[in-house]
Order: sequence, then structure tokens, then C-alpha cells
Amino acid sequence: MARWAAGTPERLQKAALELFATRGFEQTTAAEIAEAVGLTERTFFRHFSEKREVLFHGQQALVEACRAGVAQAQPDASPMEVVAAALRAVGAFFTEERRPFSRARQAVIDQNPQLQERERHKLANLAAEIAAGLRDRGVGEVTAALAAECGMAVFAVAFGQWLRDDARSFAEITADVLAELHRLTAAPLPQG
Amino acid sequence: MARWAAGTPERLQKAALELFATRGFEQTTAAEIAEAVGLTERTFFRHFSEKREVLFHGQQALVEACRAGVAQAQPDASPMEVVAAALRAVGAFFTEERRPFSRARQAVIDQNPQLQERERHKLANLAAEIAAGLRDRGVGEVTAALAAECGMAVFAVAFGQWLRDDARSFAEITADVLAELHRLTAAPLPQG
Repeated sequence: MARWAAGTPERLQKAALELFATRGFEQTTAAEIAEAVGLTERTFFRHFSEKREVLFHGQQALVEACRAGVAQAQPDASPMEVVAAALRAVGAFFTEERRPFSRARQAVIDQNPQLQERERHKLANLAAEIAAGLRDRGVGEVTAALAAECGMAVFAVAFGQWLRDDARSFAEITADVLAELHRLTAAPLPQG
Repeated sequence: MARWAAGTPERLQKAALELFATRGFEQTTAAEIAEAVGLTERTFFRHFSEKREVLFHGQQALVEACRAGVAQAQPDASPMEVVAAALRAVGAFFTEERRPFSRARQAVIDQNPQLQERERHKLANLAAEIAAGLRDRGVGEVTAALAAECGMAVFAVAFGQWLRDDARSFAEITADVLAELHRLTAAPLPQG
């Protein structure tokens, strides 16, 4: 029983992704997803508060990785070094084996504004986690919020690249995008 | 008739904000908002596809200001200079007179995750507009996406500050946050 239960969310997620990809997100019900793995709608809603949440299973683990990444940064690390540490920790989830799943998931999200909003909210949660970690390190509120939001900008761009680009790992792409951020902002802005 | 019609979305928006603030977003219906300004639910839905959209009226004007800001930047402007120009154009909306409205609106949004997601989506639309403008200027895709996302990071942080901070204008706050972004990323990152 305990062994079964452990994998249930993952099984529901896999089945949901297949149904969403073939029939469309709107056209698939929670009951159909549950049925596809021999479960009831009631079981589905024991794991997920609503249908779309099945695509966001594992989110809490990302938030926790983010927190651990921040904690692992050196005590004297600069805010952007802390952000980079958080991105490395989060990036560990996006392995080569995960790429096909992530691509299929993204294809579903791209077709549904409601899911795009939910995905944005997920990134906002990660940003809030990094910002809180920076404030705990004594970084001022504006700087902490800005560094965290920029971290999520890097994550979003790197993630998009990773879905498209077969050759490089998530870690390599993220390091390149972070370097690009530094290049972009290297020149001082004219006061206008 | 035409004169009336011109202000209808704004009147609905104002009434909605008052009802959301006093009764809560969930507890207020589109029919009640319409009634508060002597209109029918049907009229409400002629202007807004769903209840929450009433809080996002004017969004298209922001996107267009963003586009105009990008177009006004010098042909040889760096990507971050183009972003700064877009932020200045968008910032023109957030006048001193608007601040109480923006604060009341934000208080409603802060209490509802669905509205927070919708707000994030609005920022994503602005980012997409800036990124498209940068690509039209020959900026590479990754750089364009990153600069645009960082622009929205600056906007989000500046907007939060502006809601809290009475002393400075939106333009001043944005300039400071942009300068902070440059400071944050001034030191090169160690390769890790």
C-alpha cells in the first residue's frame, strides 16, 4: 500500500501528460487521467487540488532545492553568487533523462494561457525563496528582490534554451546565460 | 451613447475595485459590479471576458507604450538602453494621481493567487513585446529574451517600491533599480 502510494502522483502525471498531448488539456478530465492508471477521480483529487496541478507535481522539491542551494553558498558570497548557487541546485533536476518529459510538458503549457500563468507563478515562488534567503543573509530588500527576479529571468531563458538545444547540459546553458547577463549590464546606463 | 460607452470599462473597473476591497474578490459577482454603476451583467461581459479581467483593463495601452518606448530608443542603443527606454514609456502611466488606485488594486491582487498569476502574465506580455522589439533590432534571441526578462524584473521591483514609497516618482525609482541591477552584476561571476 505504502509502496503503491509513493508512485501515484508520478503515474498520474505521466498519464495526464499523454492525455493532454493527444486530446488537449481542456478536453481531458481528472476522472479520465485517474482511469488511465486504474484509479478513481477521488484518488486523483487526494493528490491534486485541481486538474492542472498534476503538471506541477514536484514543485515543492524545486523550492527546497533552491533553499538548499542558497544555504550552501559561502557566507561572504555576493547576491549574484548566491543566485548562481540556487540555480545550480535547481538545475540538478533537469537531467538529460528528464528532457523529453520537460519538452512534452512545455508543449502542453504553451497551448494554454491558464497553464502559462501557473508556470509563471511557480517561478515567482522560486524567486520568493531566493529573495528570502538573501534577506536572511542581510541583503537589503530591493537588492534581494532584484537579484532573485534576475535569477528567475536567467532560469526562464536557460530553461527555454535547454528545451531547444540538444548539445549542452542545463548547467552549461545556465552558466552561459548568467555570463550573458553580466555582459548585458556591463556598460553603465546613461541617466535618461 | 458613444460618450457613455467610452468610459464604461473605467466605471466598471472603479466599482469592481471598491466591491473587491470591501467584500472580497471571490464574493463579488460580475452582475453586482455592473449593478453598482447601473448596468447589466450582459454589458459587463461585453467589455470583459471574465470577472478578473476588469482589474486588467488598460493592459493593451501598456503593451503599446512599451512598443513605442522600444521604437524611440536610438538605433545604436544597447539592449539594456532599449529596455530602459521601454521602462520609461511604461512608467509614464504610473503618475502620482494613479498611486492610490494602484495600491488598492494591488491589495486585492495580493489576496488572490489567481489574480497574482494573471498579473505575472501581464508582465510576461510586456517582456515578450520588448524581446520582439530587440529581435527586430538584430539582437540575438537569447540576449533579447534575457534583457526583456531583466527589464520586467526591474519593473516588478520598482513597482513594488513605488506602491510603498511616497517620496519618489516611478521614474526615479526605476532609474535607481536599474542602477542597482548594474551594481549587482558588475563583479564577474566565478565559474562554478
